[in-house]
Amino acid sequence: MPKFFVSPDAVRGSFLTLDGENAAHAKVLRLRRGDSVVVCDGCGNDYRCTVSDSSPQQVCLVVNSTEPSGAEPPVACSVYMAYAKADKLEHVIQKATELGAYEIAAFPSSRCVLRLDAASAAKKRERWQKIAASAAAQSGRGRIPQVLVMPSFEDAVQRAAGCELALFPYENEHALSLRRAIGSAQAKTVSIMTGPEGGFSDEEVELAQRAGLQVCTLGPRILRCETAPLCALSAVLFAAGALD
Amino acid sequence: MPKFFVSPDAVRGSFLTLDGENAAHAKVLRLRRGDSVVVCDGCGNDYRCTVSDSSPQQVCLVVNSTEPSGAEPPVACSVYMAYAKADKLEHVIQKATELGAYEIAAFPSSRCVLRLDAASAAKKRERWQKIAASAAAQSGRGRIPQVLVMPSFEDAVQRAAGCELALFPYENEHALSLRRAIGSAQAKTVSIMTGPEGGFSDEEVELAQRAGLQVCTLGPRILRCETAPLCALSAVLFAAGALD
Repeated sequence: MPKFFVSPDAVRGSFLTLDGENAAHAKVLRLRRGDSVVVCDGCGNDYRCTVSDSSPQQVCLVVNSTEPSGAEPPVACSVYMAYAKADKLEHVIQKATELGAYEIAAFPSSRCVLRLDAASAAKKRERWQKIAASAAAQSGRGRIPQVLVMPSFEDAVQRAAGCELALFPYENEHALSLRRAIGSAQAKTVSIMTGPEGGFSDEEVELAQRAGLQVCTLGPRILRCETAPLCALSAVLFAAGALD
Repeated sequence: MPKFFVSPDAVRGSFLTLDGENAAHAKVLRLRRGDSVVVCDGCGNDYRCTVSDSSPQQVCLVVNSTEPSGAEPPVACSVYMAYAKADKLEHVIQKATELGAYEIAAFPSSRCVLRLDAASAAKKRERWQKIAASAAAQSGRGRIPQVLVMPSFEDAVQRAAGCELALFPYENEHALSLRRAIGSAQAKTVSIMTGPEGGFSDEEVELAQRAGLQVCTLGPRILRCETAPLCALSAVLFAAGALD
């Protein structure tokens, strides 16, 4: 069933209206009077609705029932990914949203090829947030992960360190495994911080370690910068029962 | 360090020659006399070598030491993926190889958009095998996963059922979780079979179930056809300690 996200104040009693991009998307889907859709308020509430009237500009819906969205993981997992070339970051934003990431933060790192000034960062963030919104709707999420653009590596590390479990996968770490870092204690908030194409510098690894992040391995194979965060996210979600 | 794959018979005592595509790749990397490289025979042996001489057509190496490749997972995990549109299958072949898949099998399914006749299947397989070889080299694998093209859904199911643990993630299954399906027993061979964009048909699910595959859920979010196999593979490898 098609899923749409609206702002919480769009729900008025048992009536709802889709407009703007939602109406355009409804047109693509050729929604007609009597069709069923799910509307999510992005705060964990799903509304099962029936189309009562539709025009290219707006679609009117009647709410049949309301239920808490069952699609959110029991762990809030934040994915911190260094700026990467081309569409790799977009790929990770789409996939991490599908898998169930709580939020996605992009950050600069010393070996990043991509550099963003404030203006282009704001523009990119807007585009990335749209990708997350679309992936959230398609995968039936109960909320849209926020996409953040961190001003510096240090800011990213400090924020990531605020989670109960803060993971820092690094290809030159061989002692601490992801399994041991995750352990059996069920953290409610987890962060995963991964590097750019060229990897983290020694100074960055040290800084992360000092901030309390768990520098760990993802195994003996070298994963690309777009593969590592999704592999670690899948493992964390699996361990937390979020794939059950 | 750059890694090259050669056939086992290319190793003659303590000398080795790179030619053909390997020599072309060495040229791109600008390898020179004295540089260090790793050469893998694709059977789990890594040779640490030094370049003794190089020309555009061939690179001569001296073997300094031989060691078993430590990069292969303790579980042989086969990824069966239904034919998908455009570059999705190529994406999964690359990523599954990086992550540590044992082999990747493509198969037709009733809702597949892509259809392949025998001639184009052979051509595609050749291209897919090259993608696996390149990803294996880049990620430092000890062997190149074989890419198979199965003639039918039934053949794929029968072959997948031959593994100790045969998983069949399906979005309409809600009872059996991936965690429970994997359990605590460490299977040495695992297969993961996932569907095309439109999902499996009821008949296909029934056929898989009858053949002994474990129809299981990957959680309440709907994963795209290229996300599901990599998510399940990451989880299986994590549970088997292959990410340690």
